[in-house]
Amino acid sequence: MKFTAAELGKLLNGIVEGEPGAEVSAVSKIEDAQEGSLTFLANPKYAPFLYSTNASIVIVGLDLLLEKPVTSTLIRVKDPYSAFSVLLDLYNSSKLNKTGREEPNFISPSAEIGEECYIGAFSYIGHNVKLGKNVKVFPQVYLGDNCVVGDNSVLYAGVKIYSDCLIGSRVIVHSGTVIGSDGFGFAPQPDGSYSKVSQIGNVVIEDDVEIGSNNSIDRATMGSTIIGKGVKLDNLIQVAHNVEIGKNTVIASQTGISGSTKIGENSVIGGQVGIVGHISLAKGTQINAKSGISKSITEEGKQWNGSPALAFRESLRIQAVYRRLPELENKIALLEKQLLERGGSGEEAERNA
Amino acid sequence: MKFTAAELGKLLNGIVEGEPGAEVSAVSKIEDAQEGSLTFLANPKYAPFLYSTNASIVIVGLDLLLEKPVTSTLIRVKDPYSAFSVLLDLYNSSKLNKTGREEPNFISPSAEIGEECYIGAFSYIGHNVKLGKNVKVFPQVYLGDNCVVGDNSVLYAGVKIYSDCLIGSRVIVHSGTVIGSDGFGFAPQPDGSYSKVSQIGNVVIEDDVEIGSNNSIDRATMGSTIIGKGVKLDNLIQVAHNVEIGKNTVIASQTGISGSTKIGENSVIGGQVGIVGHISLAKGTQINAKSGISKSITEEGKQWNGSPALAFRESLRIQAVYRRLPELENKIALLEKQLLERGGSGEEAERNA
Amino acid sequence: MKFTAAELGKLLNGIVEGEPGAEVSAVSKIEDAQEGSLTFLANPKYAPFLYSTNASIVIVGLDLLLEKPVTSTLIRVKDPYSAFSVLLDLYNSSKLNKTGREEPNFISPSAEIGEECYIGAFSYIGHNVKLGKNVKVFPQVYLGDNCVVGDNSVLYAGVKIYSDCLIGSRVIVHSGTVIGSDGFGFAPQPDGSYSKVSQIGNVVIEDDVEIGSNNSIDRATMGSTIIGKGVKLDNLIQVAHNVEIGKNTVIASQTGISGSTKIGENSVIGGQVGIVGHISLAKGTQINAKSGISKSITEEGKQWNGSPALAFRESLRIQAVYRRLPELENKIALLEKQLLERGGSGEEAERNA
Repeated sequence: MKFTAAELGKLLNGIVEGEPGAEVSAVSKIEDAQEGSLTFLANPKYAPFLYSTNASIVIVGLDLLLEKPVTSTLIRVKDPYSAFSVLLDLYNSSKLNKTGREEPNFISPSAEIGEECYIGAFSYIGHNVKLGKNVKVFPQVYLGDNCVVGDNSVLYAGVKIYSDCLIGSRVIVHSGTVIGSDGFGFAPQPDGSYSKVSQIGNVVIEDDVEIGSNNSIDRATMGSTIIGKGVKLDNLIQVAHNVEIGKNTVIASQTGISGSTKIGENSVIGGQVGIVGHISLAKGTQINAKSGISKSITEEGKQWNGSPALAFRESLRIQAVYRRLPELENKIALLEKQLLERGGSGEEAERNA
Repeated sequence: MKFTAAELGKLLNGIVEGEPGAEVSAVSKIEDAQEGSLTFLANPKYAPFLYSTNASIVIVGLDLLLEKPVTSTLIRVKDPYSAFSVLLDLYNSSKLNKTGREEPNFISPSAEIGEECYIGAFSYIGHNVKLGKNVKVFPQVYLGDNCVVGDNSVLYAGVKIYSDCLIGSRVIVHSGTVIGSDGFGFAPQPDGSYSKVSQIGNVVIEDDVEIGSNNSIDRATMGSTIIGKGVKLDNLIQVAHNVEIGKNTVIASQTGISGSTKIGENSVIGGQVGIVGHISLAKGTQINAKSGISKSITEEGKQWNGSPALAFRESLRIQAVYRRLPELENKIALLEKQLLERGGSGEEAERNA
Repeated sequence: MKFTAAELGKLLNGIVEGEPGAEVSAVSKIEDAQEGSLTFLANPKYAPFLYSTNASIVIVGLDLLLEKPVTSTLIRVKDPYSAFSVLLDLYNSSKLNKTGREEPNFISPSAEIGEECYIGAFSYIGHNVKLGKNVKVFPQVYLGDNCVVGDNSVLYAGVKIYSDCLIGSRVIVHSGTVIGSDGFGFAPQPDGSYSKVSQIGNVVIEDDVEIGSNNSIDRATMGSTIIGKGVKLDNLIQVAHNVEIGKNTVIASQTGISGSTKIGENSVIGGQVGIVGHISLAKGTQINAKSGISKSITEEGKQWNGSPALAFRESLRIQAVYRRLPELENKIALLEKQLLERGGSGEEAERNA
C-alpha cells in the first residue's frame, strides 16, 4: 500500500509542509529511514536525525522549530507519537484483513463458524467447534473437538488446540503454541515404570490474552488450567496442568510454571524463571529473570531475585559479597595467622584450619 | 456423552444412593463441581465438601457415614479413587477413538498402514513408512520417509518426525514435538565460518515412551539418539544428537541434554536442568530443578542440586551460609578491627584489608 | 540405496581389498556397525574394532598394516576421514533430492517460484512470495505474504514464517521454528491492563544461516530483527524483536536474547544462557552455559560465566570459595571464640554476633 502526504495529513488532521504528493510504502525509525518511508519525531533527543534522514515523510509536532532546511515532507500534528501509533495500528490491521475460506480445509459439519471468519488453507476445525465473529484462523491450525473461540480472536499459522479448550474474545495466539496437551502426570509402579494418569480437564484462555510462539500450555488433570483476562505470555513458556495465572500478568520468554501453581494478578515475571508446583504467588509479584521460586509468596507487590529467590535488595547485597569471596577467604586466613602468631589458643586454630 | 447414576453404578459394581436417573456429562474435583458433574471422595480431608458440592453424582466409600444430608446422588464402591480412575480412563480413551482416514491426506503408495489406524487430515506419510495396528496419526503430522511406528502409538496434531526414525509401540507424542532434526554439528573453518557436518543417524524411541509438546529431539550424527523404554518427557525439552536416555527415566520441562550424554535408567530430572555433552549419569540419579551438571555422575541413586551441581545436602548447607554472607563479612570486619585495636601485627592486617 | 564396494572404490578413487560385490545400504560407527553397513577407520585408537566389526565395508588408510585377518571388505584411500565425509554428504544430500510439487498445496497466483524447487504437500505460499532456485519447502510449511527465500535454502516440515520476512541463500530452517511472530511489546495502561504495540518490522535471515528446531524469532517492532551471515542456532532458542546477531556466531539450545540486544560476530554462546535487552556484546564473546548477561560487554574475545556473569577465571575462583562456605563460617566462629577467650573487646564481638 502506498500513501501520499496529502492523504496522511487528512487522515491525521495535520498540516502538510513540503511536497503533498510525497509517497510512502513503509514505516521506519528516523535514524534508519530510507526513501519511501514514513517516520516520526517525538523525542527531542532524536531531533538531529530530522536533518539527515532519508524518510520521505516525517510526522512532527505543531510547534517544532526547524534549525536547518529539511528534505523530507513534514506533517505537523499535536502529538506525533500518538499520530504515528494510529498509523501503525492501521498498517498492522491491514495485514490481518484476511477473510473467507481457503481450500482445502477441514471443517466438521457440526462446527459453527461465525460471520466474517477467516479459515486458512489446511486448517482443521473439529466436531462441535464454535468460532465467534471475525475469528482469524490462519493456515495449518488445529482446533480439536468441542473447542470454543470468542469474537475477534486470531490464531496464527500452525497453532494446535486440543479438544474441549475454551478461548476468549480478542485473544491472539502465535504460531507453534500448543494448548491443551496432556499434563505431566504419571503414577510410579512397583517395577520402576510409570503409569499414565488420564488428563481429562481442559484449558481456559480468558479475553484479551496474547500468547507468543512455541508455548506449551497443558490441560488440567481435572478442572481447568486458566490463563486470566489480559495476560501476556512471551515465547517458549511452559504452563503445566492446573496452573492459574491471574489477570494482567506478564511473563517473559522461557519461563516455566509447574503444576497447580497459582500466580496473582498484575504480576511481572522475567525470562527463564522457574516456579515449582503447588504454590501461590501474591498479586503484583515481580520476579527477576532466571530466578527460581520454590515457596509461596504471600506479601503483595514485592520483588524477588535469585535461585532460590530472595527479596530483591537482600539478594543484591548478598551477590555483592559473593563477588568478594576470594578476598574474604584471604582475610580469614590472615586473621588466623595473626592469632596463631600471638600464641594462646593457636593450636586449636591450627587443628580446625 | 451423558451417563446416569444407574449406568455408572452398574459399571462400577456399586450401590446407588439417591436419584438413579441423575445425569452427568463432565468430571470435576469435589470442591469445583457444578451440576451435571461427576466427582469422588477418597481423602477424608475433603469430606466437608460432600455437603456443599453441586456435583450431581459423587463416588464414595462403602462405609462412609454421612454427618448431614447430601443433595448429590452417591455411588458407594469399595475403593472410590480406583473406581474414579477407571471412569477417567474410559472418558479419556473415548477422545482417542478416532478411526479411518480424513481427506485430504498424503500417503505414499509405498507406505504400509496397519489395521484400525487413524490418519487425520493434512497428515503426510512418506515413502516406505510403516505404521503398526491402531496407530493414531492426528491431523497435520509429518512422517518422513522410512519411519516406523509401532502398534497403538498416538502422534498428536502437528508432530514432525524426520526420515528414518523408529518409534515403538504404545508411544505418545504431543503436538509441536520435532523428532529427528539435524544434530548441532559444525566444523570451524579458518575464516571464522562453520561448515555443516552431515547428520546421518536417526532417533529411536522405544516402547511406552510419552513425549510432551514442543520437544526437540535431534537425530544422531551417526548411529542413534535413543529414548529408552518407558521414559516420560515433559514439554520444551532439548535432547541433542546421540543422547541416550535409560528406561523409565522422567524429565521435567525445559531441561536440556547436550550431545552424546548418557542418562541412566530410573533417573528423575527436574525442570530447567542443563547437562553438558559427553558425560554419563548413573542409574537412579536425581537432579533438582535448575541444576547444571558438568561432570559424569558415577554413584547410583544420589540427589544433586545447584549449578555447578553438588550433593543435595551439601548444596543446602552452602546455600544457607550464602544467605548469611553480609553477616559473615561484618563479622570479619569486626574481627579485623578488634585485632587491630590490640596492636601486634595490626599493621599487616591493615595492609591486606 | 545400495552401493557395492566396487562402486564406492571407483567413486573414492580407492583400492578395493576383499569382495568387490559387498553391498552396503547404511553407514555406522565402526564399533556399532552391522552387516550391510559402511564405516571407516581413521583414528588408530579404534583400530582394534577393525577385527571385530560386522561392517560389510570399511574405508581405511593406504598404509594400514593388518595385524589379523578381517572379514569386512576394505577400501584403501589416502585420507579415510575425508573420503567418508564425502560419502556422508552424498548420502545426506540424497535425502534432500525432493523435487516437484506435491498435492494438495496452496500457492498464491502472485507467488514466484524458482526452478527446481520442491513444494511439499500442505505447504502454504502466500501472496507475492518469491522463492529462488532449488528451494526445498517441505510439507506443512507456512510462508506468509511477501516473504523472500534465496537459492538453495531448505525449510523443513512445518516451519512457519510470517509475512514480509527475508530469508537468504543456503539457509536451513528446521521443523517447528517460527520466524516473524510479533515482538513482545505492550504499553501499561492506568487500569493495570496492557495495550498491544503494533509490531510492523520483519526478520532478516542472511545467507548460510542454520536454525534448529522450535526456535522463536520475533519480528522487529520497527525495522528488522537480523540473523547475520553464517550464524548457527541450535534448538528452542528465543530471539526477541530487534535483536541483531553478528555473522558466524554460534548459539546453543534454550538460550534467550531479549529485545534490541546486539551480539558481535564470531561469538560462541552456550545453552540456557539469558541475555537482557538493549545491550551489546563485543565480537568474539564467549559465554558459558546457564550464564546470565545483564550488562554490555565491550572487550572483545573474552569468556564469561555465571549469573550475573563474571570473567571466566574470576568466576571459577569464586565458585571454589563458594563450595567452602560452611568451612569459612566455622573458621570465623572459631576466631570469634578465641578472641573472646582472650578478653579485650570480647563483649563487643558478642554483641555483634
